[in-house]
Amino acid sequence: MALKDELDIVIPTIRNLDFLEMWRPFFQPYHLIVVQDGDPNKVIKVPEGFDYELYNRNDINRILGPKASCISYKDSACRCFGYMMSKKKYIYTIDDDCFVAKDPSGKDINALEQHIKNLLTPSTPHFFNTLYDPYREGADFVRGYPFSLREGVPTAISHGLWLNIPDYDAPTQLVKPSERNTRYVDAVMTIPKGTVFPMCGMNLAFNRELIGPAMYFGLMGDGQPIGRYDDMWAGWCCKVITDHLGYGVKTGLPYIWHSKASNPFVNLKKEYKGIFWQEDIIPFFQGVKLPADCTTVEQCYIELSKQVREKLSSVDPYFGKLADAMVTWIEAWTEVNSSK
Amino acid sequence: MALKDELDIVIPTIRNLDFLEMWRPFFQPYHLIVVQDGDPNKVIKVPEGFDYELYNRNDINRILGPKASCISYKDSACRCFGYMMSKKKYIYTIDDDCFVAKDPSGKDINALEQHIKNLLTPSTPHFFNTLYDPYREGADFVRGYPFSLREGVPTAISHGLWLNIPDYDAPTQLVKPSERNTRYVDAVMTIPKGTVFPMCGMNLAFNRELIGPAMYFGLMGDGQPIGRYDDMWAGWCCKVITDHLGYGVKTGLPYIWHSKASNPFVNLKKEYKGIFWQEDIIPFFQGVKLPADCTTVEQCYIELSKQVREKLSSVDPYFGKLADAMVTWIEAWTEVNSSK
Repeated sequence: MALKDELDIVIPTIRNLDFLEMWRPFFQPYHLIVVQDGDPNKVIKVPEGFDYELYNRNDINRILGPKASCISYKDSACRCFGYMMSKKKYIYTIDDDCFVAKDPSGKDINALEQHIKNLLTPSTPHFFNTLYDPYREGADFVRGYPFSLREGVPTAISHGLWLNIPDYDAPTQLVKPSERNTRYVDAVMTIPKGTVFPMCGMNLAFNRELIGPAMYFGLMGDGQPIGRYDDMWAGWCCKVITDHLGYGVKTGLPYIWHSKASNPFVNLKKEYKGIFWQEDIIPFFQGVKLPADCTTVEQCYIELSKQVREKLSSVDPYFGKLADAMVTWIEAWTEVNSSK
Repeated sequence: MALKDELDIVIPTIRNLDFLEMWRPFFQPYHLIVVQDGDPNKVIKVPEGFDYELYNRNDINRILGPKASCISYKDSACRCFGYMMSKKKYIYTIDDDCFVAKDPSGKDINALEQHIKNLLTPSTPHFFNTLYDPYREGADFVRGYPFSLREGVPTAISHGLWLNIPDYDAPTQLVKPSERNTRYVDAVMTIPKGTVFPMCGMNLAFNRELIGPAMYFGLMGDGQPIGRYDDMWAGWCCKVITDHLGYGVKTGLPYIWHSKASNPFVNLKKEYKGIFWQEDIIPFFQGVKLPADCTTVEQCYIELSKQVREKLSSVDPYFGKLADAMVTWIEAWTEVNSSK
């Protein structure tokens, strides 16, 4: 199995991990990091034969002490604690309502294998290739693509998609309750430099060494005014930092089968402030400039936290708290990862 | 037929248009503009039943007088003369070695119909949608997409792709003589604002009212140091102008079947200066800023010609000539189109 000893699978959950049965042929060789959300006294069952470590809220509090405040509670944003604890170079994270999808020929899709392919081949953020991923078999750079750019840049993030239930916001869920994604688009592409995007955490892989410290899922859930923006926040931050540091982000294949739509009424309650805020947040991220002397992810992230405090606090005081948490996250990341 | 009286099909050619037989079910309702390249005394046969006008070099010289110097000779770049002569709102242009492709279900693809769909639905250059074209049936904007941007912007250009022979440059053709594109990617997407791209003229549609005067295919072929960069030049210019004016460019579907690879040795001769020059041209276009008081395509294009002269003449004196030709083109366009 590719990268067997270099990749951890991070799963946030509040229930028994029966969904792993379907993934067994693909996931069993890998180490799992389960981040248990909610009541730490509940026992989460992991199917036999999987190699895993599990952290609940008590573990998070014990390991991080007061810095545990940066890890969300009662929200799948808690998954980023698993990224921090991993000792591996690569992370794949998946939601526990995601199952194995089939390609148009009816074959089971090994999502992890495709993510690994995406991460191990370069990205091309500096110029657009109309035939999609030029490194894929049967494809190449088209006429007019500068030769100096054909080596590409290291890939930091591989963003996979979803068949069946698409990743819609609450208003769209309410308006189109029965819409299903049945279109299998056989493509992987680099998101161009300078373009931010809505990153979904359901089916996501990344290179921890290149971008790990920026993969913070923010303050969501219990005690916070917002939910369901955890992955979005991480995506916006990661994209401006990968652009600055010269790494790439890919989106497209692989698909997973997203089985169950979350409740749109509950989602609306979690999201509704975000629906307003994103109108300001996105222009903010589209305009972020990081100084040239920020040469590590940690430096970039601290600088970004300052700009968040300065530019977004006027949108809502929440962003001041979030900026604090971003700093705490980096402190915790540094502590945990230097002691390894 | 959609847009029957609002769309012209422009075909540059040096031979009889037998390829139209295969397109008859899709193209016959539309008016064709045939631009005959090379020897004007040669007679080009158009299959019966097609409604067309044909221009050869003598016609171009007669109609434009001294301004005919801006229209390339012995190069398919001459096709842009057809864009200028059209009286319609939309143009579809196709090469005469392009045939009807089949979709994965085996059905003939009506390329023109898909281009029309692309042109008549908005583009989304201001934020990236991971599920591709949000206006397509069964698709929408994903979670995290700002609601203020969901109306999109008018689409100026629809760039279609090619099955079988991919649009490779000469070096890639030489290295991979037998590579064929067999991957049908079922997607249409907007190229983000700020991202230039390699536009191929083989299978291309556009809104003449929105972007026509910028669809100039430059000075190529006879008497010029370069060929095979005509569509690239138009694409670079159009993209910075659509970005400035707030229009969109889509790429992806529809596919045509590209039947015959051009000779890579001949292509190398035509391209080789371009292979050097594009290393400077592309950063130039990536950095172009147009002033706010350029509010028409013509104004933008004249401004762009100045920047080309100023910034690219040091690459080669050819760009001074090209800048002149860009101005001549706009003069000719204005003359022809105001007298209509």
